[in-house]
Amino acid sequence: MAHLTTSVEYGIHCLLWLVESQAPPSSRDLAELQGVSPAFLAKIFPKLEKAGIVTASEGVRGGYRLARPAETITFLEIVDAIEGEKPLFDCQQIRGRCALFQGTPPAWSTDGVCAVHAVMLQAEKAMRAALASQSLASVHAALGRKAPPEFTGQVQQWMSDRLSGRRPGRTARSSEPSG
Amino acid sequence: MAHLTTSVEYGIHCLLWLVESQAPPSSRDLAELQGVSPAFLAKIFPKLEKAGIVTASEGVRGGYRLARPAETITFLEIVDAIEGEKPLFDCQQIRGRCALFQGTPPAWSTDGVCAVHAVMLQAEKAMRAALASQSLASVHAALGRKAPPEFTGQVQQWMSDRLSGRRPGRTARSSEPSG
Repeated sequence: MAHLTTSVEYGIHCLLWLVESQAPPSSRDLAELQGVSPAFLAKIFPKLEKAGIVTASEGVRGGYRLARPAETITFLEIVDAIEGEKPLFDCQQIRGRCALFQGTPPAWSTDGVCAVHAVMLQAEKAMRAALASQSLASVHAALGRKAPPEFTGQVQQWMSDRLSGRRPGRTARSSEPSG
Repeated sequence: MAHLTTSVEYGIHCLLWLVESQAPPSSRDLAELQGVSPAFLAKIFPKLEKAGIVTASEGVRGGYRLARPAETITFLEIVDAIEGEKPLFDCQQIRGRCALFQGTPPAWSTDGVCAVHAVMLQAEKAMRAALASQSLASVHAALGRKAPPEFTGQVQQWMSDRLSGRRPGRTARSSEPSG
């Protein structure tokens, strides 16, 4: 199992589709476009909404949009929104439990950050800096260079066809079929 | 919960005690010295042994030693030995599942590394480089600068007292009390 969950992968790919979507898709539209579980995606979007990465509009034409320009949304923000700022390492302060201290660790043994924890914080900082250096826009551009020019139009047509088939009563957040 | 488990923290602290230990302690000695679960530590040491980080000697005076100089043992090796080279991100190749491909993704959609995965690989590389840059010796030196000069001698005395109280029949790998 990897450190980051499948939710991160699915969440990022959904956001990449939103970069140039015209009509706002629902999480179900995005699930069907990508061949993934609608119920699974429906749990990711509220986290992205809470973090100010997407906004939802209600009604028959409602759906999700990026809340901000894709250039300002970093991979680090997306990972933190979905995973909840999970630290690399959770220091249990084992250094103060040495039997020689007999339950009363001297100040020198627990002052400052433990040297082991300090290494882990450096590694975490390096990882987070790499994630912060990439935006949704930069990765969208990299993906766009691989696709043929007509692909964007085909996706927009697929989205538009979905939207025109919608029935009243659905919401952007619904994971139920709309019609 | 953090990305790295408590086993990593306990394992590293044990190894730090081994840097200057004279008599080889058992995993139970190290557990009692640090006030942690002997059964828990007993599961970590076989992984460190398998990775060539420690060696075990048997018999009444047996125990664990570092297999190599502490300068050559990096934090990355220790983390990998205990966690098993867990990747940061496990790419599920969601990019090939787009509904427009109707089950037959074109080559351009799956060629090379997915741009999302590429960002994660960069972040993982940065984290691993930071862990690889620190050795057991460098962190041991940082810890040593905080402890008073007499502390090393007190720990060696504690270890030596444990060793002289041992009864025949124990092994380095035993998590049972030795006497």
